[in-house]
Amino acid sequence: MASWIIGNMSRYSGLVCVGVGTFVIGAGTIHRQRSQCVLQAKTIFPKNNVDLSKYMARPVTSVEKLQETSSDMKSRMEVFILEKQKEICDALQDIEGDIKFKVDRWDRAKGGGGITCILEDGQVFERAGVNISVVHGTLPAKTAQQMRARGRPLDATKPLPFFAAGISSVIHPRNPMIPTLHFNYRYFEVQEEGKTVWWFGGGTDLTPYYLDREDVHHFHKTLKNACDKHDSSYYENFKKWCDNYFVVQHRGERRGVGGIFFDDVDTPDQESVFSFVKECANAVLPCYLPIINKHKNDGYGYHEREWQLLRRGRYVEFNLVYDRGTKFGLLTPNARIESILMSLPKTARWQYMHEPEDGSKEALLMEVLKNPEDWV
Amino acid sequence: MASWIIGNMSRYSGLVCVGVGTFVIGAGTIHRQRSQCVLQAKTIFPKNNVDLSKYMARPVTSVEKLQETSSDMKSRMEVFILEKQKEICDALQDIEGDIKFKVDRWDRAKGGGGITCILEDGQVFERAGVNISVVHGTLPAKTAQQMRARGRPLDATKPLPFFAAGISSVIHPRNPMIPTLHFNYRYFEVQEEGKTVWWFGGGTDLTPYYLDREDVHHFHKTLKNACDKHDSSYYENFKKWCDNYFVVQHRGERRGVGGIFFDDVDTPDQESVFSFVKECANAVLPCYLPIINKHKNDGYGYHEREWQLLRRGRYVEFNLVYDRGTKFGLLTPNARIESILMSLPKTARWQYMHEPEDGSKEALLMEVLKNPEDWV
Repeated sequence: MASWIIGNMSRYSGLVCVGVGTFVIGAGTIHRQRSQCVLQAKTIFPKNNVDLSKYMARPVTSVEKLQETSSDMKSRMEVFILEKQKEICDALQDIEGDIKFKVDRWDRAKGGGGITCILEDGQVFERAGVNISVVHGTLPAKTAQQMRARGRPLDATKPLPFFAAGISSVIHPRNPMIPTLHFNYRYFEVQEEGKTVWWFGGGTDLTPYYLDREDVHHFHKTLKNACDKHDSSYYENFKKWCDNYFVVQHRGERRGVGGIFFDDVDTPDQESVFSFVKECANAVLPCYLPIINKHKNDGYGYHEREWQLLRRGRYVEFNLVYDRGTKFGLLTPNARIESILMSLPKTARWQYMHEPEDGSKEALLMEVLKNPEDWV
Repeated sequence: MASWIIGNMSRYSGLVCVGVGTFVIGAGTIHRQRSQCVLQAKTIFPKNNVDLSKYMARPVTSVEKLQETSSDMKSRMEVFILEKQKEICDALQDIEGDIKFKVDRWDRAKGGGGITCILEDGQVFERAGVNISVVHGTLPAKTAQQMRARGRPLDATKPLPFFAAGISSVIHPRNPMIPTLHFNYRYFEVQEEGKTVWWFGGGTDLTPYYLDREDVHHFHKTLKNACDKHDSSYYENFKKWCDNYFVVQHRGERRGVGGIFFDDVDTPDQESVFSFVKECANAVLPCYLPIINKHKNDGYGYHEREWQLLRRGRYVEFNLVYDRGTKFGLLTPNARIESILMSLPKTARWQYMHEPEDGSKEALLMEVLKNPEDWV
């Protein structure tokens, strides 16, 4: 899930790696431009503030183009995820201390690219990846068909121009008392017969190794508050969607305690959905930082570490067997595999017929993974 | 791959778990019976010697039935894999010392079952599984279609009665100087319009962490000798098939240094193919034991162990993303997941953008994983 965008989109990669846009040196000044939305004329939108100091690397799209098209949702989403990536990396680095994120800016053959930030072997974070990608090109008929199955009635007889931009992240802390976090927010556009079909998707979910009900309540409540500001039905629906998506089907258990998950959202209007997606992405740190800070100095031993590694084995099983984005991504020629698989933990274990003891803390976790609860 | 039989077959499991056959106490005496092959009348075949002391657990099929149908290939294959399972477990236990195989005999809902033997946390073997399964029932139209894609022109409009018996094994030693071994031999029957369609499949392949050319030569030469006794074209064809099957496609590398792999083999006749499959299964220990014994006391350090764990991550990637049997198995309701996933290593690691140093021993291995060689 971490790499939904990359995964799903880099499949359209060709064989030649092409540089993306031109880098305008010193273009980090605020460029204000009054403009109109291409989709809804006559509405005035906020301007893009392209400020390179707020990003982990230079944007995927040239600064010039980002400024010229500052009212276009494609540019607004790119600028938003660029800022969000840095904000989250900065927050994690502040907790971590000495070890910094490694930053890789990469180009995608046939259009676009991404910025992969990864921190490994830290004291607090064993492996934390925060990735953005901004890709475009044409969508093969077969893929359009797959989208149709997900509710998008696209014309599958000819290739369609598409655009996708998203941020995705998986954070695996070292301490088994701190849950793993995953989030992903994305924007799609497909051009069909001169018409732009667009939608947003995303979600934030938590994978604890030990159940702290207070943490899970805080996590879900923060997400619910974000949702409620936009639509009173969102939290309930997207919480269920999350519970139904992150299922290790062959084990009959969820990957974690859920959160929210949604896709194909295009109502009531683009501005409202973008505003909702920003709200969700802005809620990531308030969801998670208090949990990290609460548990980062908790004591644990061999037993807890072993259990964490076994549960990480389940995380690997979900991501490699079921996760749509990962599966698509891995089967894509020229996909950036290391960005897709940054969602995997540093270490995972398997043990034949492992069953937690009845009444143990481990069994308590399994109970809620098998029977999702209402946390708010 | 380890669990091809289980994986592919337990998908036809229903919801009710039914005990298989009746266990005839004291039936372990040799029961001789003169009989004719159901497929090729007038040929006299060897009798089944049902000897319970030669198996890890009582057969899946009742001893009575195994004896009554001792000339039927279904029974002959079951008796063969029962014996082979014990022979291999015994040989590994002899090397291991104190730690013994855990033996689980399980029933399959809607027909058949299996015996899973697993040894974990040994001094020599970190995780070694040797599994047999003998399953029967009806084949859904959809599955028949999938078989057609693999070269079997089956009538996919109605469910077909099927039978499958096989042995599969993955052995992950602790010492990085000893390669991981996988093998799997299987027999299928499908009834179509009163006619029996049958075929054999299987293979043995090696996954080293460090390249010892002498070992790989010995391994392939032993397999070639087994193949050459039956058909001079087998080794070359099945070696290529193996190189093409065990590919971690998204990495552009093979899982290991190959061996042999074949499927859908039904010529020149059933007796000859069974004889070939037995030859291959009998070659497993001669292929592998000398390599274990040669390296089991080799020294290694943190660096070598880390490399082994990273390569085990690739093993997990192959098995969960590409292996046909594992994929089918995991998507099967009521499949015996722990038997399917016994192919996974005890521990696996991932590291962002890990690349072995030029000219290192690790790079030497990668070279042959990227460009398979002729080893004989």
